[in-house]
Amino acid sequence: MSDPIAELMGLLARLPGIGERTALRLAYHVLGAQPDYARALGDCLRDLHSRVRRCERCRNYTTEALCRVCQDTHRDPSLLCVVARPQDLAALERSNVFRGRYYVLHGMLSPLDGMGPETIEIAPLERQIREDGVAEVIIATPLSVEGEATALFVAQELRPLGVKTTRIASGLPHGGELEYTDQVTLARALDGRRDL
Amino acid sequence: MSDPIAELMGLLARLPGIGERTALRLAYHVLGAQPDYARALGDCLRDLHSRVRRCERCRNYTTEALCRVCQDTHRDPSLLCVVARPQDLAALERSNVFRGRYYVLHGMLSPLDGMGPETIEIAPLERQIREDGVAEVIIATPLSVEGEATALFVAQELRPLGVKTTRIASGLPHGGELEYTDQVTLARALDGRRDL
Repeated sequence: MSDPIAELMGLLARLPGIGERTALRLAYHVLGAQPDYARALGDCLRDLHSRVRRCERCRNYTTEALCRVCQDTHRDPSLLCVVARPQDLAALERSNVFRGRYYVLHGMLSPLDGMGPETIEIAPLERQIREDGVAEVIIATPLSVEGEATALFVAQELRPLGVKTTRIASGLPHGGELEYTDQVTLARALDGRRDL
Repeated sequence: MSDPIAELMGLLARLPGIGERTALRLAYHVLGAQPDYARALGDCLRDLHSRVRRCERCRNYTTEALCRVCQDTHRDPSLLCVVARPQDLAALERSNVFRGRYYVLHGMLSPLDGMGPETIEIAPLERQIREDGVAEVIIATPLSVEGEATALFVAQELRPLGVKTTRIASGLPHGGELEYTDQVTLARALDGRRDL
C-alpha cells in the first residue's frame, strides 16, 4: 500500500501520547505547511541516531566522545548521580542543583516488561567509580516501583566497592498540601523527617 | 549550534498542539527507540511533498493524476461538494454520506491572517462545474466565521453560472442537549427548522 498520508499517520501514532486522530491531524498539517519544514524535520529525524551517541564515560547523549558535563572541568568528580534516562539528567542540569557527575543507566528493572538485571549495565559505572575516586553515589532513579527496584539493585551491585550509596529523598513536593497527598508519600515524608 | 536534540525539539514544537515540553519528550522518545523508527519517519516526512500532489480535477491530495474519488466512476458528477481542506473531504468520505464529487479550496477567507479573496482559486471550480454538468454545488466549509465568509464568497462568485448553490445545515449535533448549546447554534437550529 502506498498512501503517504496513512503511512505518516501510522508512524506518528507510534509516538507516546499521539493517538490516530492526532497523528492524522499532524500529517495533514505537515502537508499543508511549507515543504521545507517537512524536509528539515525529516532530515533531522533520519540523521538523529548517527549524530547522537553515548558519552564514553557516563553514557549521556552527546555529539562528541564525552558529554558536556564530563567535559566540564569544574564538576566535582567525587559525587556521582545515577539516573535512569538522559532526560532525567537533563532535568537535573536545568534545575542547577547538582555539581557532580552522572551515570545514565538507560533503563530500569521491570520484570513485567522483560527488563531483567542483565539490561542494567553496571560495569562502566564501577569503572567510573574506581577511576574518578567517587566518594558518594546518589541514586536518582524515579520514586516508582521500577525506579525503587532499580535503586536497590544498583546499591546491591555496588556494595563490594565499599562506596557510600544514597537515595534521593521521597516526600511532599514543593507547595504540596497534606490534604491532597497520597498515603505512601505521607508515610515516606514522616519516615524521612529531619531535625530542625 | 548543533545540538540534534534541541534541533529536533524546535522542529517538533512547530506542530499544532505540541508545546516545547512535549516536543522534548518526543525527541527523547525517538532517541530511545530503535534507529529504524527514526529513519522510517524521517524518510516518510522528507518525501511527503514529492509523493503527494493535488488531484488535477478537484485538488484533493493524491499520488496519481486524479484522486480516488475522481477516479471512481460510480460517483454522481452532478453533485459537487466544496470543502476548505483535504481533511474535511476525508471526514465526509469516512462517514459515507455523500456520493457526488468534491472541490477542495485549500484555504478560507481570513482577512486578519492576510488571506484575501485572491487566495481562493475559483477558476478550476468553475471549469469543473461546466465540464461535469454540475446541477448543485453544496458548500461544506466549516460553520466558523472564516467558513461562513468563504461560503458567501464562493456562492457569489458562482452566481453568473446560474448553478444551484446550497449550504450544509447548522443546528444541534447528534445527541445534542439544548441546555448546553450556545445561543448562535440554537438560533440557527430554530431558523433552519423543517416540516415534520
